[in-house]
Amino acid sequence: MPEEIVVIDEQEIDRTLEEIRAALRAGRIQQAVRALTRLHPADRADAFAELPDTHQDALLPRLDIAATADLLEELEDEEAADIAEKLPADRLADVLDEMEPDEAADILGDLPPERAAEALAEMEEAEDVIPLLGHPDETAGGLMTTSYIALRPHTTAAQAIEFLRQIEPDEETPYYLYVIDRDRKLVGVVGLRDLVLAQHTDLIQDIMDPNVIFVTTDMDQEDVAHLMTHYDLAAVPVVDKDRVLVGVITYDDVLEVLQEEATEDIYRLANISDADLSIDTPVQTAVRRRLPWLYLNTLTALFAAWVISNFQSLYAQVAVLAVFQSVVTGMGGNAAGQSVAITVRALALGEIDSRSALRAVFRQGTIGLLQGISVGLVVGLGVYLWQGNLWLGIVLCLALIGNMFIGVIAATMVPLALKALRLDPALASTIFVTAVTDSIGFALFLGLASFFLPYLR
Amino acid sequence: MPEEIVVIDEQEIDRTLEEIRAALRAGRIQQAVRALTRLHPADRADAFAELPDTHQDALLPRLDIAATADLLEELEDEEAADIAEKLPADRLADVLDEMEPDEAADILGDLPPERAAEALAEMEEAEDVIPLLGHPDETAGGLMTTSYIALRPHTTAAQAIEFLRQIEPDEETPYYLYVIDRDRKLVGVVGLRDLVLAQHTDLIQDIMDPNVIFVTTDMDQEDVAHLMTHYDLAAVPVVDKDRVLVGVITYDDVLEVLQEEATEDIYRLANISDADLSIDTPVQTAVRRRLPWLYLNTLTALFAAWVISNFQSLYAQVAVLAVFQSVVTGMGGNAAGQSVAITVRALALGEIDSRSALRAVFRQGTIGLLQGISVGLVVGLGVYLWQGNLWLGIVLCLALIGNMFIGVIAATMVPLALKALRLDPALASTIFVTAVTDSIGFALFLGLASFFLPYLR
Repeated sequence: MPEEIVVIDEQEIDRTLEEIRAALRAGRIQQAVRALTRLHPADRADAFAELPDTHQDALLPRLDIAATADLLEELEDEEAADIAEKLPADRLADVLDEMEPDEAADILGDLPPERAAEALAEMEEAEDVIPLLGHPDETAGGLMTTSYIALRPHTTAAQAIEFLRQIEPDEETPYYLYVIDRDRKLVGVVGLRDLVLAQHTDLIQDIMDPNVIFVTTDMDQEDVAHLMTHYDLAAVPVVDKDRVLVGVITYDDVLEVLQEEATEDIYRLANISDADLSIDTPVQTAVRRRLPWLYLNTLTALFAAWVISNFQSLYAQVAVLAVFQSVVTGMGGNAAGQSVAITVRALALGEIDSRSALRAVFRQGTIGLLQGISVGLVVGLGVYLWQGNLWLGIVLCLALIGNMFIGVIAATMVPLALKALRLDPALASTIFVTAVTDSIGFALFLGLASFFLPYLR
Repeated sequence: MPEEIVVIDEQEIDRTLEEIRAALRAGRIQQAVRALTRLHPADRADAFAELPDTHQDALLPRLDIAATADLLEELEDEEAADIAEKLPADRLADVLDEMEPDEAADILGDLPPERAAEALAEMEEAEDVIPLLGHPDETAGGLMTTSYIALRPHTTAAQAIEFLRQIEPDEETPYYLYVIDRDRKLVGVVGLRDLVLAQHTDLIQDIMDPNVIFVTTDMDQEDVAHLMTHYDLAAVPVVDKDRVLVGVITYDDVLEVLQEEATEDIYRLANISDADLSIDTPVQTAVRRRLPWLYLNTLTALFAAWVISNFQSLYAQVAVLAVFQSVVTGMGGNAAGQSVAITVRALALGEIDSRSALRAVFRQGTIGLLQGISVGLVVGLGVYLWQGNLWLGIVLCLALIGNMFIGVIAATMVPLALKALRLDPALASTIFVTAVTDSIGFALFLGLASFFLPYLR
């Protein structure tokens, strides 16, 4: 009995890569192919992506149809499209036939239109893929696969199992079987487990659950992900506007959506609007996509500078103000940044609604005030001891309390307002809030300093 | 034939809440219970959590054991523990028996030890839960459930199906069956689908996949999540150090881990170290957990102030320096913030390793330099036109180029260094990098201003 057990093993991948490189240098292509295909398909794709283009080109024609299909399914979308472009149309068609319909549709969508049409014309199972091509990427329709199993209500459990034996569903077919009426409308769901446990003569309509949770093709992919997470679903059926079953979305697609979404939020909070940027993005693209936000930041920074310029005459009299003004804006920004993160995350996880929004603003405001008092007292006292200027300490303390309070309130209200306007709360919240804490911070500190000027000199 | 089809419907939940409140006010508790139990268990928990304590206390004794178990499974951990504390020990034991072992173990872990011991003593299925109690929350052992099905290699497919019929596995039992030898060591996996498709007389050892991917009880939950995402697994078996099968982790646990992890990264980038904070955290707790990082920020802000204080005599001569110094530090911080987000996310998704780290620093450095030149030229020119001071524009431009370049390099290296030191790259990266962009920014700008002082006046 085989006893081999596999765990994820980066070193194994590295060793295999070494072996492939050595074999290719020695012209032993078959050995390189054997080394590559020894790996789990997911690891194989990782290893393949690490190889230089010349090595990839040498290996690609030697992989069989199934291995090439595995490779395209496991690679990142862009890499997969690059590889697909290198294949002759008839071979590409065979590979796409072998792939899951949703993955094949993704590849076809990323190819130049004439190449995609060529491959489709050569495909045998084009009818599984064509219905998937018309849906926007970010919707349930763009996420679903047509590889699912549908049963009729009057089938018996034994007939259903016999049907399964005949069609030999592959690994990726969901563990749920959907029940449709004569118009292909969705009327229920049967778990494979329920089918196994049923008596042979039980009718599907008696063992199915008629309360099936479904989504429509035009539903946003994030909403699909939240629905599946909320109801703990491994798969969800997709219907068109007439409730006709057209596809299924499985948990692995949702995992990807959730990861993309988290990336998007993390990026947007850091003023990067394009979630496709990664550590590997070429310099030119990265600069082009990151610069617009930096220019927006520049505008708000120059606005804050203009605020300061109204107090410029102060520095000739009390130069030390220039030393501490940034402490006020910086700490306001830090406290506000915490509240932006908490509010944006709460909105992303659906933890906040119109009822609780006001309560949230009130609570965060209280937190900001208490934080302002805590930090203000420490900084005020510290600066008094450092500079020996009591009034400078008092002005700093008051400005910190005010700015941290206002900053935290803005940090809670801005994401809520963006959400209410149906905009992404993560996008632009940081820039708005920084503009507030910078401008108000300088105005408060320098305004208070003007007021108490006689005591500061 | 029933045609009822359910979709997620916030309004339905709100209507039900209204009905429950009205019924409870009128003293019709049974009607309130009926309204609540009409909802899907996941929605039911959401609705229940919205009710005030007095209403919860009125409903709780009227829910049957199964409904109470559903409720505790679907509620957030803390809320579930609060509810569990209100139940008498014998009733709690019945509810815990009804729950999934991993969920029951989580509740027991959150109860005061003497309450947990009481409940365990009354439980009938304590032996399923006790093995789960010893594992830290953040490990595979803390995530796994003991509710799985194990088969022996010499069983036939027909015997296995008969066995399944007898034990009537519940909804949550994974769709994979694990194969163990006489020492309970894991030797293979059989999909329920493969079992259905097999001939009755096929032996499990002939239809099982011996290359089963597994994790060990002490594996970090994030590594488990990445492994399951990487290999697209709906469930993964957990073994102890002797490869004895002790539990199973399913995709829904992994979804939760990934969401927790994203929250953690978003928070840590905003200098909040405690991922348990939410928009609903009471003020006192929130302030206590957020303040330490603000005090650390205060230290770095005061350090930056100390840097400025070395140039304090400049302001009496060129007051306008105080107006623009924050533009240099602010823009350095913004550009660096983008790179911190990209680097931290790349590390979280495993897109970066020791080989690619140097390339990443080099590429981000180039991006920072180009961004510095772009922003520096615009700001330099703008300020020259605004203030009519060419040398002020030149000094600003040079300081911006230098600070954005250095800031972006630091923003890439600090998370990589933290990761190399086996610390969380999200934690503390922001604070380190802000300290760099603030201190270096002020030093560069004011240093250059001192150097060019004759031309600036």
